Amino acid sequence: MDFDREIREHYLRGHEKFLRHISIDCVVFGFFNNELRVLLLHAKYAGHWALPGGFILKEEHMDAAANRILAERTGLEKIYMQQFYVFSEPTRSTRKVNQQFLQNVGISYDESWMFERFISIGYTALVNFSKVQPVADVFSSACEWFNIHAIPELILDHREILDKALESLRTQINYHPIGFNLLPEKFTMPELQRLYETILDRKLDRRNFQRKIIGTGILKKLKETKPGVRHKAPFYYKFDLKKYQRALKGGMGFES
Amino acid sequence: MDFDREIREHYLRGHEKFLRHISIDCVVFGFFNNELRVLLLHAKYAGHWALPGGFILKEEHMDAAANRILAERTGLEKIYMQQFYVFSEPTRSTRKVNQQFLQNVGISYDESWMFERFISIGYTALVNFSKVQPVADVFSSACEWFNIHAIPELILDHREILDKALESLRTQINYHPIGFNLLPEKFTMPELQRLYETILDRKLDRRNFQRKIIGTGILKKLKETKPGVRHKAPFYYKFDLKKYQRALKGGMGFES
Repeated sequence: MDFDREIREHYLRGHEKFLRHISIDCVVFGFFNNELRVLLLHAKYAGHWALPGGFILKEEHMDAAANRILAERTGLEKIYMQQFYVFSEPTRSTRKVNQQFLQNVGISYDESWMFERFISIGYTALVNFSKVQPVADVFSSACEWFNIHAIPELILDHREILDKALESLRTQINYHPIGFNLLPEKFTMPELQRLYETILDRKLDRRNFQRKIIGTGILKKLKETKPGVRHKAPFYYKFDLKKYQRALKGGMGFES
Repeated sequence: MDFDREIREHYLRGHEKFLRHISIDCVVFGFFNNELRVLLLHAKYAGHWALPGGFILKEEHMDAAANRILAERTGLEKIYMQQFYVFSEPTRSTRKVNQQFLQNVGISYDESWMFERFISIGYTALVNFSKVQPVADVFSSACEWFNIHAIPELILDHREILDKALESLRTQINYHPIGFNLLPEKFTMPELQRLYETILDRKLDRRNFQRKIIGTGILKKLKETKPGVRHKAPFYYKFDLKKYQRALKGGMGFES
């Protein structure tokens, strides 16, 4: 079977193409209808769910590798990803699941670069999941979105990587603007607040939120209100793209 | 000479001890007397200034490696360091300076793991430089603090690493508290403002700064004013350590 040959080839000779000791794991968060989800693959050989991951080609930039890996493994293309943390626990790559893997693939421990130590660079992205169509690759039996409150057991330290990505996302929205590719062009203050509440996973005080977000200067208030609302129809807002871009680079705190 | 043997040994057999393809570079910022400086080594063989850097032992955690490297190369011990970015430009390790190095050490290109591709994990720290005593190691002819406005030419992409660390520090102080180990236990608002101004390298509006920093909740105002000031003696403040710690973890924005 082609698939088995491909796996064996990767285990026995992958180090001729890829850098040893370094992997990339992608935590892709999806937002839609006030729900935060994460994209997982079901790894055929491990029999477990995993983050989409892979390796860096010998001459490839790491950012390009992250994009290639995500595209190859899930079909998602041109997603803006950012490195967020490096996972380097010396024992992280040699846990039980690998022993299982080893038996399944029929390769002995010291025959393969895949059983050497790996540090993993975590990349993260936030996408509108109604706009992308994930597709599983040959190594996986499924590629699915999971609500972050219902994550199945993950291989290796992938749960830790996911938790750290979530922590990083929650810290980032305190000083980096978000929402441009997640909300419609015009949105109301309650809609923006729900985006923040979903990511932070808690209710925010309406007045405090409004004061802080307006204080960042990234919003333009429109004269138009939302139609079909009887009392106190909420005003529409747009992002001020110039200030949004500036805030993306410089942060929104003392600098602004 | 022992030194030459040590260098040759490292070039020819270092990969038996260290992970291939991965290096660590440390950007240590020093703050004292309203000046921001960075710690550099003068590399004997390269004939250039460089960030203190090194490699990860095969069984070592990356954070432990960063601390060991900084201690071995500069004498600075028990410094709290954080990873801030990974540098992965495929050409970053094979620039001109390496050719020079090669000739000086008398090793041919394909004899040494040191001429393979490296990605580098950047670590950063902020210390009170009056409290530490840097000492150069055997590979370096000097270990000195440089004002960030007077940085000499650096090897490889170290200037880029330094710039990114500075950018990261400036973004971080927008949402992470700083100052605990840099200021005296009691300090005035103008003293705290000067710390921020030095790091951000620009003047801040006094009233805006005061409003924002008080809004974070990490300060306790004392009843005591600074002695020896004639008019409007400024009050002393202390950090509220519980809130400071909480802000270190969770950020100081919408979360707080």
